[in-house]
Amino acid sequence: MDFTMPEKTKVILEMTQEFLEKEVYPLEPHFVGKKFRDMWPEIKRCRAMVKKMELWGPQIPKELGGMGLSLVDHALMTEVLGSSPLAHLIFGCQAPDAGNIEILEKYATPEQREEYLVPLANGDIRSCFSMCEPELAGSNPTELATTAIRDGDQWVVNGHKWFSSSADGAKFAIVMAVTDPDAPVYLRASMIIVPTETPGFNLIRNISVMGHAGDDYASHGEIMYQNCRVPAENLLGPQGQGFVIAQERLGPGRIHHCMRWIGICNRSFDMMCKRVTERKVGGGKPLARKQIIQEWIAECRAEIHAARLMVLHAAWKIENEGQHAAREEVSMIKFFVAPIMLKVVDRAIQAHGALGVSDDTILSFFYRQERAARIYDGPDEVHKVVLSRRVLRGYDE
Amino acid sequence: MDFTMPEKTKVILEMTQEFLEKEVYPLEPHFVGKKFRDMWPEIKRCRAMVKKMELWGPQIPKELGGMGLSLVDHALMTEVLGSSPLAHLIFGCQAPDAGNIEILEKYATPEQREEYLVPLANGDIRSCFSMCEPELAGSNPTELATTAIRDGDQWVVNGHKWFSSSADGAKFAIVMAVTDPDAPVYLRASMIIVPTETPGFNLIRNISVMGHAGDDYASHGEIMYQNCRVPAENLLGPQGQGFVIAQERLGPGRIHHCMRWIGICNRSFDMMCKRVTERKVGGGKPLARKQIIQEWIAECRAEIHAARLMVLHAAWKIENEGQHAAREEVSMIKFFVAPIMLKVVDRAIQAHGALGVSDDTILSFFYRQERAARIYDGPDEVHKVVLSRRVLRGYDE
Amino acid sequence: MDFTMPEKTKVILEMTQEFLEKEVYPLEPHFVGKKFRDMWPEIKRCRAMVKKMELWGPQIPKELGGMGLSLVDHALMTEVLGSSPLAHLIFGCQAPDAGNIEILEKYATPEQREEYLVPLANGDIRSCFSMCEPELAGSNPTELATTAIRDGDQWVVNGHKWFSSSADGAKFAIVMAVTDPDAPVYLRASMIIVPTETPGFNLIRNISVMGHAGDDYASHGEIMYQNCRVPAENLLGPQGQGFVIAQERLGPGRIHHCMRWIGICNRSFDMMCKRVTERKVGGGKPLARKQIIQEWIAECRAEIHAARLMVLHAAWKIENEGQHAAREEVSMIKFFVAPIMLKVVDRAIQAHGALGVSDDTILSFFYRQERAARIYDGPDEVHKVVLSRRVLRGYDE
Amino acid sequence: MDFTMPEKTKVILEMTQEFLEKEVYPLEPHFVGKKFRDMWPEIKRCRAMVKKMELWGPQIPKELGGMGLSLVDHALMTEVLGSSPLAHLIFGCQAPDAGNIEILEKYATPEQREEYLVPLANGDIRSCFSMCEPELAGSNPTELATTAIRDGDQWVVNGHKWFSSSADGAKFAIVMAVTDPDAPVYLRASMIIVPTETPGFNLIRNISVMGHAGDDYASHGEIMYQNCRVPAENLLGPQGQGFVIAQERLGPGRIHHCMRWIGICNRSFDMMCKRVTERKVGGGKPLARKQIIQEWIAECRAEIHAARLMVLHAAWKIENEGQHAAREEVSMIKFFVAPIMLKVVDRAIQAHGALGVSDDTILSFFYRQERAARIYDGPDEVHKVVLSRRVLRGYDE
Repeated sequence: MDFTMPEKTKVILEMTQEFLEKEVYPLEPHFVGKKFRDMWPEIKRCRAMVKKMELWGPQIPKELGGMGLSLVDHALMTEVLGSSPLAHLIFGCQAPDAGNIEILEKYATPEQREEYLVPLANGDIRSCFSMCEPELAGSNPTELATTAIRDGDQWVVNGHKWFSSSADGAKFAIVMAVTDPDAPVYLRASMIIVPTETPGFNLIRNISVMGHAGDDYASHGEIMYQNCRVPAENLLGPQGQGFVIAQERLGPGRIHHCMRWIGICNRSFDMMCKRVTERKVGGGKPLARKQIIQEWIAECRAEIHAARLMVLHAAWKIENEGQHAAREEVSMIKFFVAPIMLKVVDRAIQAHGALGVSDDTILSFFYRQERAARIYDGPDEVHKVVLSRRVLRGYDE
Repeated sequence: MDFTMPEKTKVILEMTQEFLEKEVYPLEPHFVGKKFRDMWPEIKRCRAMVKKMELWGPQIPKELGGMGLSLVDHALMTEVLGSSPLAHLIFGCQAPDAGNIEILEKYATPEQREEYLVPLANGDIRSCFSMCEPELAGSNPTELATTAIRDGDQWVVNGHKWFSSSADGAKFAIVMAVTDPDAPVYLRASMIIVPTETPGFNLIRNISVMGHAGDDYASHGEIMYQNCRVPAENLLGPQGQGFVIAQERLGPGRIHHCMRWIGICNRSFDMMCKRVTERKVGGGKPLARKQIIQEWIAECRAEIHAARLMVLHAAWKIENEGQHAAREEVSMIKFFVAPIMLKVVDRAIQAHGALGVSDDTILSFFYRQERAARIYDGPDEVHKVVLSRRVLRGYDE
Repeated sequence: MDFTMPEKTKVILEMTQEFLEKEVYPLEPHFVGKKFRDMWPEIKRCRAMVKKMELWGPQIPKELGGMGLSLVDHALMTEVLGSSPLAHLIFGCQAPDAGNIEILEKYATPEQREEYLVPLANGDIRSCFSMCEPELAGSNPTELATTAIRDGDQWVVNGHKWFSSSADGAKFAIVMAVTDPDAPVYLRASMIIVPTETPGFNLIRNISVMGHAGDDYASHGEIMYQNCRVPAENLLGPQGQGFVIAQERLGPGRIHHCMRWIGICNRSFDMMCKRVTERKVGGGKPLARKQIIQEWIAECRAEIHAARLMVLHAAWKIENEGQHAAREEVSMIKFFVAPIMLKVVDRAIQAHGALGVSDDTILSFFYRQERAARIYDGPDEVHKVVLSRRVLRGYDE
Repeated sequence: MDFTMPEKTKVILEMTQEFLEKEVYPLEPHFVGKKFRDMWPEIKRCRAMVKKMELWGPQIPKELGGMGLSLVDHALMTEVLGSSPLAHLIFGCQAPDAGNIEILEKYATPEQREEYLVPLANGDIRSCFSMCEPELAGSNPTELATTAIRDGDQWVVNGHKWFSSSADGAKFAIVMAVTDPDAPVYLRASMIIVPTETPGFNLIRNISVMGHAGDDYASHGEIMYQNCRVPAENLLGPQGQGFVIAQERLGPGRIHHCMRWIGICNRSFDMMCKRVTERKVGGGKPLARKQIIQEWIAECRAEIHAARLMVLHAAWKIENEGQHAAREEVSMIKFFVAPIMLKVVDRAIQAHGALGVSDDTILSFFYRQERAARIYDGPDEVHKVVLSRRVLRGYDE
């Protein structure tokens, strides 16, 4: 057993943290209060610096211009980036593009690679992933109503999707659609690349979430696919393998989310500690002298530490023993880390008093926006049941 | 002991509930998504109906055109109204006007009565209450920096206030300011009526809270009082009695908030129950068949029931034994009910999945907006410490 | 709504409390540490005093020598008695005899009345209730393996029971046995009176529970009924009505348990308050000055208060609207009150430090012995599911 | 980062687990129900086998006949041993002897080594550690009333100690006593070896804890030291260094306790899983099909995993960066792991129903005996405050 962090990794993390504090945190008030579209000049400016520092695309393979980090190192990087809602975008590892890059990297044809992967990995275009449907349980990917029917050398896509994040302004969507309705249940769907300018791709609205419809990257699209025709060669990966491909993405994607949450924990915890040492209450003593506050700080510290170790262990296990061996860990971190993150944010808010619910700090944004963490990518409850069944399998006879 | 609800009360509550469902709930999407100012025609239309039904001003004395309900009956009415964020305004018992009416009713001079109380009770004007200051702990009303200095026949007010709710569009503010800096600590401040058009009353901004600055009634003002001069007769109540008057308001105000939260519980609980019976998951069975969901429902039901009994008991005690006798209960309900309310809302959201974090239901609004319940009117932690000290006083010698 | 407690009730409760402090609490060290059987002289001495004070049998009808209190008044009395594990026995309202008296009072034939009810109500004999079976879920009374087969003018009982509390030393058992195996499921069982000296009534052991097998009243028997023959007239109530009768007992029995738990809360809470004001820590200040302790005290106070109101409301509802109308409340109090009781005891122990886990106080006894509260009479989880189904019935169509 | 477990360690752990199942678990019913003293023949038999397998004394240096494992490996071994309350004793690493061995190993004079350390490490004698005092907060080691005054070539010890575990039958006590009352607070006390046969060493009683006074190894002594004279050379380590020495022991001792608790978690969790797959409820389906149970299993699994990683990380850090660097981690694991252990035991009991509170399984013993985990070695609350202060030190200026 060895918990040492390599010197090189430390340097990267420190550079990143420094950059965030100097360049990224100051952009947050704009991010929280105004149109996202207007931020692009700033984001591009930052991205150029990131590329110059050779910190672009931590998870992107080197041949595509990224850093090509290991999963554990990427996890550590994601932790640092997680402290700001803008950082992943600026460093080129934002959802949903990061996942799409991973899929394309593995399955794209040379033409798809040229047209979609290269500019995506370079940050020149954006994409979205179109899976969730409003009428069906998002946690069960086998329940899909959207279809893609082969008509000559085209796929004709029909269906109703929502929570296709960042669809607004995306160049293309990777759409999950049933292509083989009579196949075994896990082999019915395929992934298809649909450029957003295709007729029949109708972005109905950006769904208002927690008070904001948002725009551009910061949005969640509801999309009607209405006789939406794309060339046959837009199939991504083998036909009928949509879920298999999605499944492969699951482990690393989970690590990404969980370490991002740890980053949110760290930032909120740090803000809480600053606040309680600065804020004077009755008698001029700082809040930090109050035992209730001290208890929060101790508990948060311990829980963040536990959550962090658990995610790093899962990343290590995926990397060293494969995703299949790490299925338990991948289920576990989802429902273990998200509530801790929400609790840390909640306590940081409480320690800030009225200031905490205002938008004068980033905490209120975390509180609102990250509530979804316990829902997307499978609600906590589903992961608990899945894990339990796996555990109990060892006891059944 | 007798838990019977009078027949007459039942009728009032049913009429109210029916009206909410027909007229008020349908206004909520506008409320959540758009300018508040544009809603006034609708609100006025509803208020006219409410007055016709003789349901206006549940807590306003009959001679001022209200229903003049007892505290327990008003609590029950507030529970029903609490189910919608618009209802209290439409029924004439919204904070902060309701509290201001209560104070004016007790302390206003005949001239103040005519000029401020009568139109306020009638819903013709709005008001705000200006107490909290950003630099000082809101939970300690004795820490006030705002001053009002007597200069001839005027008061000159200087200070910095925030979270003066509904200041935007209010006709006047009741300002808490130090008038007697050398008096014993609880006798230093007075209440002063400051019309918002007075020079030196500067509404700097509506504070952005949980993503929205809001406007008009739905806002929280930050105000600079800069050499703001009002006539000496704008003093409200005896000089130096500001905290004593505020204290009197505390019990009924607490009942108001807590029963409103129970109303939010009821609505969220009802939405959760509807959702889980309608939503089909794997195999076409409703979510309601899942034991985890059943546990949530049972626990929420029990906790709401407990919270409700506790608040009704506190209201009964204030009414029958006086506020002083009910101090323990008044502290207790604050920190007992707010977390239950937030838990019920949170579980209702979880049961709704992605829909729950969207603004397609009112739940996301409750989640964001009501987080402050654990902060305003004294954070939970302060109330716990206060209650504990009172309890332990019986053991010290 | 009226929460007033009648003057007469107050006097009874005060007399009872005073008696407990003077006569009963001092017996506890013996109770916790030694043979129960040796305590009878003390118990009899106390009982004589109780009878003289006319406080015997709060729930026993006057014609049987008891106080004949209403359910609400009995609940209040039970709360006071609950503070000591010996008090119910001394006041003649201990489980399982209290429940058996209630059943006998309603269903006994004149002969059964004379032979069993009168001496039981008078405290001259003891009894047990033999329902639970080790192989079957105790929470489902319809799963019974024990049979009583009619053979001429006798019932022949065969079966394996456990957790028949106080069987050791009891004069008779009321046994739940299947008499009509082909009837609809809820009409299969009957209650039969089996004197413990009957051949075939074999008390195998007093089950060791939480470290102690105990003896006499303070024990939980495991019983084998082996061709145990009793006269036909030992049937109690109509044949096949065993569950119906048990069901009738449920509401009042639940009130009894829950108020007893509130009594445990009160005593533990009081001990905690005393301890923290007396115990000095670093610097000579009492523990009571620590905010974490203050938070415990405030939370416990509020939760005990909520639990108490809930049980009193349920008692009132059973009494005024009948048990059927109060089914929700009867489910709710079980799973709401038990965890609060265990939490209060746990925190009182923690506040006592090493002393808390020792047997130098009663807390350790409560901690061990009352853990079963979340299991007997239906585990919390079963009650939650039952309540939830009832609630959701209003939403299904 | 590397979570690999060496092959050799795996083999040791498997051998140990196998031995426990075959030889140690079967001894538990005796342990729970009868005199401890009568168990020694069985324990000696087992110890002989352990020595033959070369598994004796995992933490004892090789030159003293132990395995001399690293702290991390010892932690892993302790986890396995923790599953049974008898295992540590049988493998020669039981508290309080293990800690005493560690101190003696470092500080004993050659004579002390010969007389006390060698037979102790060999399991020929037992010892106790006499620090806690009833009148003073155990969590503050600087508050000591026991004194040792030098009189010629003797120390005269006077004082009142309690919770000196395993004093009954011990050959000697290591006593913490004030020798230098005028020194700075952390330099006042020394450790002194007091043979238990010394006149003036009075074991007043074995304190009854959670229902049992116990005996021999399984006991907690209350001791009066009354003019108890020992030779000057019985001083252990430098005079005035008692707390410094105790402090050194703290980290490894904490690892020992926490990993033992993880062992209890593992065993209880395993019992719960077995129970729920075997126990049939309504309709013949196993309890394991119930979602509430599944949620327990998933949550317990995740929490045990988190706790385990946290303790292993702390062990690694103590070993690699020293105890000083690991102070935060050493505080954290105490209050993080103990509540998880108690929760896992509690849920395992609940899943067992009535059987769970009986002594037919080991769970009831864990429930009672391990409650003290949140108290001894510093109550959770003290560790939280200590950790919080350390964290906040980084923010103060």
